[in-house]
Amino acid sequence: MYKLVLIRHGESTWNLENRFTGWTDVPLTETGIAQAKASGRLLREGGWDFDLCYTSVLKRATHTLWHVLDEMDRTWLPVVHSWRLNERHYGGLQGLNKAETAKKYGDDQVLVWRRSYDVPPPPLEPGDPRSERGDLRYARLSPEQFPATECLKDTVARVLPFWNESMAPAIRAGKRVLVAAHGNSIRALIKYLDGVSDQDIVGLNIPNGIPLVYELDADLKPVRHYYLGDAEAAARAAAAVAGQGKA
Amino acid sequence: MYKLVLIRHGESTWNLENRFTGWTDVPLTETGIAQAKASGRLLREGGWDFDLCYTSVLKRATHTLWHVLDEMDRTWLPVVHSWRLNERHYGGLQGLNKAETAKKYGDDQVLVWRRSYDVPPPPLEPGDPRSERGDLRYARLSPEQFPATECLKDTVARVLPFWNESMAPAIRAGKRVLVAAHGNSIRALIKYLDGVSDQDIVGLNIPNGIPLVYELDADLKPVRHYYLGDAEAAARAAAAVAGQGKA
Repeated sequence: MYKLVLIRHGESTWNLENRFTGWTDVPLTETGIAQAKASGRLLREGGWDFDLCYTSVLKRATHTLWHVLDEMDRTWLPVVHSWRLNERHYGGLQGLNKAETAKKYGDDQVLVWRRSYDVPPPPLEPGDPRSERGDLRYARLSPEQFPATECLKDTVARVLPFWNESMAPAIRAGKRVLVAAHGNSIRALIKYLDGVSDQDIVGLNIPNGIPLVYELDADLKPVRHYYLGDAEAAARAAAAVAGQGKA
Repeated sequence: MYKLVLIRHGESTWNLENRFTGWTDVPLTETGIAQAKASGRLLREGGWDFDLCYTSVLKRATHTLWHVLDEMDRTWLPVVHSWRLNERHYGGLQGLNKAETAKKYGDDQVLVWRRSYDVPPPPLEPGDPRSERGDLRYARLSPEQFPATECLKDTVARVLPFWNESMAPAIRAGKRVLVAAHGNSIRALIKYLDGVSDQDIVGLNIPNGIPLVYELDADLKPVRHYYLGDAEAAARAAAAVAGQGKA
């Protein structure tokens, strides 16, 4: 029996401003920092410990992890960063205020882009100042790997190789793994682990900054999962995420 | 030609209280945080960039690195932690106020312990509450590796295998390396790189929180070295370090 702990980053400045973030590297808000620290305290007080941490190459996830490790007095744990754990790339919507986008394109179109499994938003052109091309952290990506936009299906497709090649082998080797990532990279993992349908995964909302425990059997099949701390607070936080993007 | 950047952690709470710290995991002071951030700004403004970071398993070095990476917007860089980059283990002196120790043992004895190359302070007994035995970050160390006290010669002996097996190969492979470490682990590296004598190395003082650049030739022999920023400030800071431990 293995245990895997997933934490979506705390509230970011663009969560607060209700903007599509995607690969834009925005920081946590004070609330987000407090959420991350609270996660760390929950883990410490629950006697949790880890051998290996994974996070994305985006600072809202990395800072969340750092605050968790600070609270757990585990600042010395090894941390693996991968672009494959990044948030879903939101293409041409990145930086747009969600409510304004909803007004422009309509609630329905925005909900399709946010919540359909296989319809990506318009791509971000290479010449767009918002493009991540040229960013050193992505220098090793091939042109085929570099997204200009993603639907959730695309996110799943680039998260799973990392699960299979790095995370799953580490867990099988007995490493206790902590993941600080993003709403859609965590969805990708959950879809695979729990075998969630394409339809259902788009309705699954991950609250910010609350540890989500997956208990896995010897074949890494989930036995059960649960949020640490106050279950009702986790449900309210998930509902708040679901409400984002409405005009 | 390679460049290697070494940063001694910013001021810690026990630097401020003038206590022997060693492997005790004390945090940075506000001054130490400011020093670390200033280092990051110097590196960013100087156009420096890195591919790989090394630090110890102690939070004053790790936090220094994190603040530097934050200021450089490089929070996604890979970081390798090793106990081999820890501060010199100060044995039974750990936690003692330096001035009190000097009064008790005399300035000369304290200076011998701090600054002789091969005379270790009294060991920290395994049953001492200050002992790091049982600390998970050291779980993989063999009994022979686990120090109860160290002279600088001992520190050099455990730093060098890490240089030879991890850091030097990374530099030769073209990785631009940043190291956030401690006064004596940095001394160990400098002693090896510059071929400093046993006598001279104990008089070499590394200021807190100022980037020290080593330019290395193809054989990793130093061509020159210099502190970034205000050279006089670096010299004053080094002199302040030299003054610690006097009654």
